[in-house]
Amino acid sequence: MGQLPAVSPAEDKAMARAIELAARGLGTTSPNPVVGCVLLDAAGHVVGEGFHAYAGGPHAEIVALAQAGEKARGGTAVVTLEPCNHTGRTGPCVQALIRAGVSRVVIAVDDPNPLAAGGEQTLRDAGIEVLTGVRTAEAEDGNIAWLTSVRRGRPFVIWKTASTLDGRSAAADGTSMWITSEAARMDVHRLRGTVDAIMVGVGTVLADDPRLTTRDLRTGSLAIRQPLRVVIDSDGRTPAGARVRDGAAPTLIATTALLGGDEEGRVDLRAVLSELHHRGIRSVLLEGGPRLAGAFLAAGLVDLIISYVAPKLLGDGPAALVGAGVTTITDAIDLEVLDVDRVGPDLRLTARPRASADSGTL
Amino acid sequence: MGQLPAVSPAEDKAMARAIELAARGLGTTSPNPVVGCVLLDAAGHVVGEGFHAYAGGPHAEIVALAQAGEKARGGTAVVTLEPCNHTGRTGPCVQALIRAGVSRVVIAVDDPNPLAAGGEQTLRDAGIEVLTGVRTAEAEDGNIAWLTSVRRGRPFVIWKTASTLDGRSAAADGTSMWITSEAARMDVHRLRGTVDAIMVGVGTVLADDPRLTTRDLRTGSLAIRQPLRVVIDSDGRTPAGARVRDGAAPTLIATTALLGGDEEGRVDLRAVLSELHHRGIRSVLLEGGPRLAGAFLAAGLVDLIISYVAPKLLGDGPAALVGAGVTTITDAIDLEVLDVDRVGPDLRLTARPRASADSGTL
Ligand SMILES: NC(=O)c1ccc[n+]([C@@H]2O[C@H](COP(=O)([O-])OP(=O)(O)OC[C@H]3O[C@@H](n4cnc5c(N)ncnc54)[C@H](OP(=O)(O)O)[C@@H]3O)[C@@H](O)[C@H]2O)c1
Ligand SMILES: NC(=O)c1ccc[n+]([C@@H]2O[C@H](COP(=O)([O-])OP(=O)(O)OC[C@H]3O[C@@H](n4cnc5c(N)ncnc54)[C@H](OP(=O)(O)O)[C@@H]3O)[C@@H](O)[C@H]2O)c1
Repeated sequence: MGQLPAVSPAEDKAMARAIELAARGLGTTSPNPVVGCVLLDAAGHVVGEGFHAYAGGPHAEIVALAQAGEKARGGTAVVTLEPCNHTGRTGPCVQALIRAGVSRVVIAVDDPNPLAAGGEQTLRDAGIEVLTGVRTAEAEDGNIAWLTSVRRGRPFVIWKTASTLDGRSAAADGTSMWITSEAARMDVHRLRGTVDAIMVGVGTVLADDPRLTTRDLRTGSLAIRQPLRVVIDSDGRTPAGARVRDGAAPTLIATTALLGGDEEGRVDLRAVLSELHHRGIRSVLLEGGPRLAGAFLAAGLVDLIISYVAPKLLGDGPAALVGAGVTTITDAIDLEVLDVDRVGPDLRLTARPRASADSGTL
Repeated sequence: MGQLPAVSPAEDKAMARAIELAARGLGTTSPNPVVGCVLLDAAGHVVGEGFHAYAGGPHAEIVALAQAGEKARGGTAVVTLEPCNHTGRTGPCVQALIRAGVSRVVIAVDDPNPLAAGGEQTLRDAGIEVLTGVRTAEAEDGNIAWLTSVRRGRPFVIWKTASTLDGRSAAADGTSMWITSEAARMDVHRLRGTVDAIMVGVGTVLADDPRLTTRDLRTGSLAIRQPLRVVIDSDGRTPAGARVRDGAAPTLIATTALLGGDEEGRVDLRAVLSELHHRGIRSVLLEGGPRLAGAFLAAGLVDLIISYVAPKLLGDGPAALVGAGVTTITDAIDLEVLDVDRVGPDLRLTARPRASADSGTL
């Protein structure tokens, strides 16, 4: 293979920046990935920056090239994802890079999408030096929803839960407003702004009649972009007047009539995820309730858990999680804790199941 | 009042050290407090150190004075607790300080015990300069069990709990070994070594037949000093062959026959704590189960909570806390989180109930 070109400090720094830029597209690029690009001139100075901001909008490389103009010639393009080779809505980025005369391309993550792949080879064929594997783990983290959806053929599923320290999701009389603090609830709204769909079970709709919109908690004003609301509802029990049916955001009532049922006559969860995938949904925020979350965990369909724990004790009331298919302690669902943080008075744990029916590829 | 003598940097540092020394007595000084003492000569150099190591043993001041000898003359005694004035088992410390010729005494916490108090005045009457209120909060924390017992007339109660992230204390089939990691269990044994008694409900004895001893988890060898084991057992259902009845440590089976019952015919928890107080018990580690913990919390008798949370999900099985007297969310027991730590893979939260029936004095 001869000598491998090494990453320079300027390129490494540019990649960190490109990953940062990419993240700005979170929540608006689906079904596309988030991508960031930094262009360096031959001396290693930044001459262009760009990110993919929304589906149908220009790709990160195109934005950065437009900014750099002639300064890109002889320079290096640092991109979080292998530049696309196919003529999509915006034309292949590899051709744009070749035309701009860059002499080197540094890539964090190879494109797992067969439709887009091949970019690297095309660049090499054009005499451009290509370096891959720079800050790969970091860039994969930033694109985890999209990568999961490509690799598994279903959206990335984040289970969000809020409970007391003793694991209750409501008090004995059913009241649950508010278990967690305003700071934690604002954090959830921020999280909603980064996903393509928000999902609950019909039990939660019947109990709480939630809005499931992304909005400013203080003013109540809705965000411009609203994730799809999904209710898992075997027999279509979601009331006609339920808030999830208002016009504030699109809604899918996932019934067995629409998507087929499992052996127990309940909605087939894999079928739901498949349907969402076909609709271009790359990430789903599963907001409960305990029974639907249990079914998702039992099926190995949860990729990330964000658990808000309020420093409170109830001693009675419904549990935060029900029916995850575990009967004995050695079969407990083991989590890898990625982060523990304070959000106002509450704790926020970020974790992922160590093994899931679907794992192996990721 | 004239000019108040200010604390010098050397004295402040000495107090921090005295608090550290005091902590070495934790678990062996009951019914006495833990106390630490550092002696400085006139130039501010450390010339003696001491702590109260065990009930009946010499007080901290006596140990430090013995070490300093003539170097104490004209110097400063820095003590975590007001020196005692009464002739106890070791003679009053104030007289020893006066005889040694110290010219100044710096105190963190005033003695709330009427039997021992008055030391400060006696020192002043002997012409010694006395400065109080140095690092008071820190020193109170170190003596919290003893201070609580003096102020409330009952032992300090620490509820220790271990659960999964979804608040289960066992799986559906009753198995609970092990929810938490070996690191967390070793931490619990360390904790047991600092208290005077370990308490459980008869439900836990019947379900788990625990030993409730302080021992080396790897070798099984018992610690020299064993806390009193207490079983709350209204009708004396603890089996004759239960492990808590073995000879490894003293045991109290607290029945209604022995201590009287509440309106529901269960053991009167305040009566138990009173009885323990009379036996010189200053701190109790309440190790469950969920029902007994609920009763203690409902009665406002828990002073500190140490909660080990394993990064696991069960979705079924007994809850970590039952029957704490809360029915609606606004009545949830609010906790002040003092510390969040990782112990092996587990989380350890240290918290205290914000309000309790007993609070106000502390
Ligand atoms: N603290 C929190 O974070 C939080 C969040 C949400 C909700 N909650 C609380 O949770 C409670 C409601 O929870 P819940 O457990 O009763 O209801 P849920 O989990 O919201 O919904 C469960 C229902 O979903 C339907 N379903 C359809 N297909 C399913 C499948 N494959 N697997 C599982 N369920 C399927 C079933 O009803 P059908 O058979 O009729 O379809 C099932 O009863 C409320 O009290 C709410 O306040 C708390
Ligand atoms: N994960 C953990 O940290 C942990 C720790 C301990 C236990 N556990 C689990 O907890 C389970 C046992 O818990 P449990 O709730 O059934 O039993 P428990 O809390 O250990 O004991 C409750 C019993 O104590 C007696 N009691 C007497 N006076 C009482 C009073 N004033 N208030 C409350 N109780 C009083 C009652 O029985 P009488 O009326 O007969 O006296 C009551 O049923 C076991 O499965 C065990 O594995 C878990």
